[in-house]
Order: sequence, then C-alpha cells, then structure tokens
Amino acid sequence: MATGFVFLWFSFFTLLSSTVSIAKITPRFPSSIVRPEQLSAALSTKNQLYKTKYFTQILDHFNFNPKSYQTFQQRYLINDTFWGGAHNNAPIFVYTGNEGDIEWFAQNTGFMFEKAPHFKALLVFIEHRFYGKSIPFGGHKDVAYSNASTLGYLSSTQALADYASVITDLKKNLSATDSPVVVFGGSYGGMLAAWFRLKYPHITIGALASSSPILNFENITSSYSFNNIITKDFRSESETCYKVLKGSWDQIENKASQPGGLETLRKSFKICKNYISAGSLEGWLNTAYFYTAMTDYPTPSNFLTPLPAYPVKQMCKAIDNPTTGNDTFAKLYGAANIYYNHSGTATCFDLNDDSDPHGLGGWNWQACTEMIMPLGGNNKESIFPESHWNYDNRVTFCKLNYGVIPRPDWITTEFGGHDIKRVLKRFGSNIIFFNGLRDPWSGGGVLKNISKSIVAIVAKEGAHHVDLRFSTKEDPEWLKDVRKQEVNIIAKWIAQYYDDLAHLSS
Amino acid sequence: MATGFVFLWFSFFTLLSSTVSIAKITPRFPSSIVRPEQLSAALSTKNQLYKTKYFTQILDHFNFNPKSYQTFQQRYLINDTFWGGAHNNAPIFVYTGNEGDIEWFAQNTGFMFEKAPHFKALLVFIEHRFYGKSIPFGGHKDVAYSNASTLGYLSSTQALADYASVITDLKKNLSATDSPVVVFGGSYGGMLAAWFRLKYPHITIGALASSSPILNFENITSSYSFNNIITKDFRSESETCYKVLKGSWDQIENKASQPGGLETLRKSFKICKNYISAGSLEGWLNTAYFYTAMTDYPTPSNFLTPLPAYPVKQMCKAIDNPTTGNDTFAKLYGAANIYYNHSGTATCFDLNDDSDPHGLGGWNWQACTEMIMPLGGNNKESIFPESHWNYDNRVTFCKLNYGVIPRPDWITTEFGGHDIKRVLKRFGSNIIFFNGLRDPWSGGGVLKNISKSIVAIVAKEGAHHVDLRFSTKEDPEWLKDVRKQEVNIIAKWIAQYYDDLAHLSS
Repeated sequence: MATGFVFLWFSFFTLLSSTVSIAKITPRFPSSIVRPEQLSAALSTKNQLYKTKYFTQILDHFNFNPKSYQTFQQRYLINDTFWGGAHNNAPIFVYTGNEGDIEWFAQNTGFMFEKAPHFKALLVFIEHRFYGKSIPFGGHKDVAYSNASTLGYLSSTQALADYASVITDLKKNLSATDSPVVVFGGSYGGMLAAWFRLKYPHITIGALASSSPILNFENITSSYSFNNIITKDFRSESETCYKVLKGSWDQIENKASQPGGLETLRKSFKICKNYISAGSLEGWLNTAYFYTAMTDYPTPSNFLTPLPAYPVKQMCKAIDNPTTGNDTFAKLYGAANIYYNHSGTATCFDLNDDSDPHGLGGWNWQACTEMIMPLGGNNKESIFPESHWNYDNRVTFCKLNYGVIPRPDWITTEFGGHDIKRVLKRFGSNIIFFNGLRDPWSGGGVLKNISKSIVAIVAKEGAHHVDLRFSTKEDPEWLKDVRKQEVNIIAKWIAQYYDDLAHLSS
Repeated sequence: MATGFVFLWFSFFTLLSSTVSIAKITPRFPSSIVRPEQLSAALSTKNQLYKTKYFTQILDHFNFNPKSYQTFQQRYLINDTFWGGAHNNAPIFVYTGNEGDIEWFAQNTGFMFEKAPHFKALLVFIEHRFYGKSIPFGGHKDVAYSNASTLGYLSSTQALADYASVITDLKKNLSATDSPVVVFGGSYGGMLAAWFRLKYPHITIGALASSSPILNFENITSSYSFNNIITKDFRSESETCYKVLKGSWDQIENKASQPGGLETLRKSFKICKNYISAGSLEGWLNTAYFYTAMTDYPTPSNFLTPLPAYPVKQMCKAIDNPTTGNDTFAKLYGAANIYYNHSGTATCFDLNDDSDPHGLGGWNWQACTEMIMPLGGNNKESIFPESHWNYDNRVTFCKLNYGVIPRPDWITTEFGGHDIKRVLKRFGSNIIFFNGLRDPWSGGGVLKNISKSIVAIVAKEGAHHVDLRFSTKEDPEWLKDVRKQEVNIIAKWIAQYYDDLAHLSS
C-alpha cells in the first residue's frame, strides 16, 4: 500500500507540498479562440482588452490604528468600449479578482467581454490585494510577503472592502452612481462575488458566482468529496483507466525502493537531471490529474496550461492505449504528457519547477489563516491512496511556515454556510451559483436553488467556471444554454433595478 | 447674536466639548417602576436580573498579524430564568451592546425581560469592546485608551464580529445551534442590531433596531434635522417657551461680557465655586435641553438622570412660570433644575463635572474614525444659535486629540444607507426600525416601511428607544400598541423559523 505521500491540498491552483511542481506555462491571450465578430471588431479598434488603472487603497478597513492608514496601489482593468454611459445609467460589470494576477483572470473571463455589448456594460476587473501588481508596502513583494505582520493584511474581508471602495469611488468619478453593478467571479473569485452580494447589497445588485465552493468549510462538505469527483471523472471514461491510476501508486513506490529504481522512473517519465523521489513524482502526476479534472473543458483551452478538448478523456485514452501493453509507467507518462506537454515541445520535465507565472503565492497564507477548506481526503474507492483530511497537519505547516495558527471557524462565522438553504431562503437575493459537476470543487458548491432569486445552475458535463470562458464555435449545446440562462437572469436583475429606480425614490 | 459656542455634537450620550459637564448620576435599577407580576416573581426568585459571564475574544477579526491574535475578556450578561431550553429550540434574545456599560443598557431594556416569559427566551446582553468591563489589553483601560495604536481596535465592524463569535460559541456550548436568535438594540446598539441582521443573517433571524439613526451619515440626512427636532419638541409645548430659549443665548453672552456678569450668572444658576464661562454655562444648558428632548418619556424615568414624566413639558412649564416674570435666567434655572435636580437635593452645580458613570468615554474615538454623523447644525428657526455642521472642525479635533483622521465615507461604504429603500426592498428581511418622533435622533432613522419584512414603526409621541424600556402602569396606549406590534412581528419571525426548520433540511 502506497503511503509515501500525503498532499495538504488546499488551493484552487497550487498544491501545498514542497515536492510539487508545475510546468512552466506562460499566460497568454487565448488567440486561437474564435471571438464573436462584433466583439472582435470593437476590440481590434481599441487594440486591447482593457486599460490598466490604479486605485489608492487603504491597508486596513476595519482597524483604525496608524498602520492601517497606510495605502497601496491596487490595480484594476477597465474597458469602456461597450458602455452605454453614465447618462443612461448603463450597467457596470465587475470581476472580483481571485488569488492571482488579474490579467490572467480577465483573459479567461471572455463571458464578460462577449456579453458587454448586449448589456452596454462597462467592464472592470479588480485585482485582489497581495496578488499581481496590487502589493501593499510600496509594491515590494519581498516586504509584503516577508512575515505574518505584513501578510496579516491579506484576507478575504479586506479584499471585499477593497472592492466596495474601488467601485464606490469609480462610480462617483464617472458620475455613474445610479448605474447598476453586477459582480462576477470564478473559483475563489466566485466566492468573493457571492459574499460581496451578501455583504454589500448596496453596491451590487447581483452576483454570478461560478464554481465557488462556499460550502467547503467546517463540517459542511465531506473532505472526501473533492477526490471522489476526480475519481468519478476518470472512472466515467473507462474502468481500466481508473484501475491503472489507482494501482499505479504502489508500483511507483515499489520501483523507487529498488536499487536503481529512481533512475528507471526518471527515464520513464523523462524527468530532467535533477532531484527525484517517489513523492515528488507522485505529486507531479497528482497535479496533472487534479488540474485536468478541474479544467475538463469541452474545447481546447489554455487556462493553466494548453490542453485539448475533454482532456480527461484524452488522458484515459493514453492510459488505455493498447500499444503500451502492461507498462504502467508508459501509460502514466502518456497521461502526464496530455497535461505537461500538449504542445509536444518539452524534452524533459522539471519536478522542482516552483515557478509561479500567475502570482498565486499568497494562497498558502490565506489557507493558513481563514481558508480552512477540509478536502483532499481519499476513501477506499479513490484513485489516490487512501488518506484522511487532517487539520493538525495544516496547523503544523502554518506554524512552521508563518508562525500563524488558523482560525478554522472564521469563514462560517463571518459568511455563514451552515444551513444555507434555511438562512438564504428568507434573506438575500440575486445570486447565481454555477457549478459543473466534473469540477472537483463542485462538491463544496451550492447545487440547488435556494429561493426564486438565489439560484443554482448545474451542468453535469461542466468543469471549473467553464461558463465564464470565451465561447467557441465548438461549444456544446448545454454550455450555450447555461450562458443563455445566466444572461436572462442578469437581464432580469437589471430590468428590475431600472424599474425600481424609476418608481422608488429615496 | 450669540456666537460664543459651537458644539461638536456627535454622540448619543456625550457632547464633544471641553466645556460640557454632566451632573453626576448614579446608574441604578429603576425600582420605582412597576414590573409585571410574573416577571417580578421569577426575578425575585433569582434575586437578580442576570448573571455575569466572560468570553475570550480575539482582538482583530479581519487581520491576521500576530497582534490581532491577542485576546481580551468580553463581558456578557445572561438570564435563563424563562428559557424554554435547547431541546425545544427555544429562542435566544440578544442585546447588541452600545457604547457604555452593558449593565446600564440591560437595566434600561425591560422590554426583553418582560417579553422573555412569553417567548420562553434566553436573554443575553453582550458588552461592546472597549466599554464597561470589556477592555482589551489585559483589561487595563489606561493602556487600551492610551493612543491610536490601541484604540484602533475599537470599531463597529469588530464589535459586530465579536457578537457573531460570542453567539456562535454560546449556542454551541448550550447545544442550542437550532435555537433562533433575535437581536435587540437601541440607539447605537440599534444600529448594530440592524447591521448585524444585514451582515450576519446566518446568526440572527431578525432585529429590533430601536431609535437607530443609520441614515445619519454622509449627505443622507440633513445636519439641521437633529436640532430642528429639539426645537419642535419645545415649541410644541409653548411658543413662549421656544422664544425664551431662543433668545436666552444672547442674554447670557451679554451678561457674561459685563463686569461682574459671570458672578451674576454663577449665582443665578447656583454654579459651584469653580470655573464658569459663557460657553461652559451654555453647554450645560444645551446638554439639559438635548437630553431632555431625547428622553422625553411619558412616565418618570431614570435613564441618564432622574426625570419626571414628559420632562420637556415640565421644562417649558418652568420657563412659562408666571412667578419668574421677565427674569430669563430664573426661567432657565427652573428648566435646568428639571434635568439636573429632579430629586431636589443638589445645592450647587459643577460645570466641570466630567464624570462618566456609564463608561461612555470611547465614543469620541469612534466619532473620530468612522462615526461621522453630520448633525448639530442650527438654522435660523433653531432654539440654539445659528451654526453649521463643519466637518473640518471634526478633523481638527481628531488630529489634536488622537492624531487620527476620520474616514467619513466608511460607514456608508460598509453598511450602505444611500437609497436604502431601493437596496433593501429587494434584499434582506426581518428588521423592525422603531422611532419616536420626539427623539432628535429620529431624523436619521428609517421612518417608512421598506418591504413586507423590513418595517418602520413610528410613534409621534415617542422618544429615544422608549419601546425598549420597562413598562409601567401609566404607559399610554400608543406605547402599549407599539410594543404589541413588535411582539407580534417577532412572534411571526420565530414561527416562520420553526416552520422552515421543520421543512427545509440542509
């Protein structure tokens, strides 16, 4: 039984394991994707997706000691190509940035660009503090990330207050105080969008929260759910694919423990001439399976890395490839190539690659303070070796790395989550929770309608915020239908807002 | 024209003016008030209104730097005499403490004690951080109040998060996680109650926010409204009363500027042998009028100081007293006696009395950071000398006293307030806003229904959170009716909650 690796998974995009590596991938605009004519024309006139601006943001909104008055430059991206203007009270669509470079998220949120012309919407993408170029302490990342005293200001509540401040100020500056604001976000950004609607209803009229696992906290969602979904994804392609993956961990450990075994593994997986261990190799494979399941999109994509359409299917095809016979390592290598080498140009792979092209480095801090999402447990059926969520491991890691102790019940205290159906049935309105059931994060999502205006859209075939991506000619009907539903709901929110604006004086 | 005093009013209970004094008043249980038999019996068995407990509270909820992990002992009062118990999911009524000693507020919130038997409710009164005995930094007030670095942790958002933490923990400890929580508060405590329902709907099913001027911020409510209401209160009693008060300021200033004039004033008002100036005398009178208007209750009371029923009427009676002829100072002295000497035992008055029996001292800090409530302006009709709200004065005061600059738009950014009708018509539920129109704070209150479940109860004859006070045999019908309405609405919330509990599984 393989017991050599335990992953302290807790991020949307990074695994908390020193042995884990992510192949170097360059963020770039998905140029291969066909954009609607109208959009392409308008954007080519402008020759850019957005302009970059900065807002002078306060360091701590909830505390008034002198340090909290320090400011930093918060980046936001703006596109007014399609905006109907303040005089028309035309809407403002705001993306509530996640744990990374905001350009990356903007470039992967084509939905907003594509729907802006229809809604005559102004587009704004706000970067999350401590990520990308929105670094407190003079923009010096080495200072901002140096210790708990500076990192302390990195939190979800501060980020939400940042967004409230940016939006309020921007509307004032644009003389657009009566323009309705709709917020959008995917993944952690989707959690922020939903929470923003709940906490700042005076600033946004509604939220599209895509693939936002707001229920993945404190005894609400099973810690096995995440890997169960990955398991189901692969098993749905073929039973042999599932069995090969499930059985592979023991084989890797056995081989690694034999004399010369690591060298054999290095050659089998074309690992570059650097450090290799069973754990690091397993982490590398695990990463590939996890992200492939998460981004199992129906069309070619380049979110985390270039991938073909339906990459889980492609991985299983590689595993089931009859030419590999009984050679498990050859099968795994084929599968890993789907994720790490879709372009076919890699000559070897670096297990020690700790590059962070999307600037996701702050998530570990968040995962050590408030983002205590119990997940990553593996039951007997899992394609990964059996293991269990262990909060103490998290505590040990966080003490060691940051000298900080998590507050595991803070998120549910601040934002709720328990009995969400009962709480939000009678409170709140205008939130769309989208989830694709292929996405391992969907286990912590809101999968059922809560009220007439807090609705769940669930796509059996969908993956991680697939709805927010640029559309393509190859999009399946179900995906077109999801987006149509979202557009219709948002249109209703806006129409109702205009009606209220006309009839409800203050 | 009197121009010698400008009050930087910004508190519910204190005036920000170095010349202002409040007569020494001892907080005591209003024993003269008749309590319902049932309540009296139950409480006499217990021989107390509540037990005192402490909760270990975190210093900063929204920041994760090492300092924020410091803890302090937060006091709360609890009474389980009438509670139906966790096994019955019996309700929990929580008072969200204001800017003072929680015992004082508990003792002046008889409504909760009186209605607890009917609802079989557990009663909890939570003290606001930095007030009473809930002092951070080891309970050392001299440390906690020493400078902006320590006072910085005194804020409304931290207080709300405190309440969320106390309630969540208490319910867990009582195995009462399914008990519905209703929050109550008056004045600033009412603002906190309303905001708590809006921000923490997963913790409370509804809020009774009494006399909570949540709209007295940033260009929402006229800065003249407050003193206009005081003016109206006195003018409603008699036109001569209004005219005497309005004309008195010039007379005081004139007298003070004459040789020996201050000595005459001292004798006229029986001021003890200490400092006197026109400004300090005016402040002393102003305080009396302001608080008398605010607590213009229909029955004898002892909230801020012992007062007869309808004290504004009594003041005007004193002013209109024919035996004082044209002697304005004698008239004013008679009026001041209503407020400062209802018991008739005072031999002289101390203008320098800066005692703070209710521990309200932290409010100035709050008024220098987030509680920027534009009020205190006087238009030409005011009983006070014409003057205008001046934000710059606030800034000067705050820089000088705390080295801090206010954030005047923070409260509306965090909690809203603009276009509240439009925002909350489609969002939120289960809030009662009570206001008495005799109360100068009512100008910043919610005076109209917002939706079916966010309702305004307005009593033309009511004063500052009169509904929350212990009932008396002399209570007028309108007051009984207000309380009846409140009980009925709260009963509906609770019934609906139980219905949801039975039918909505999580």
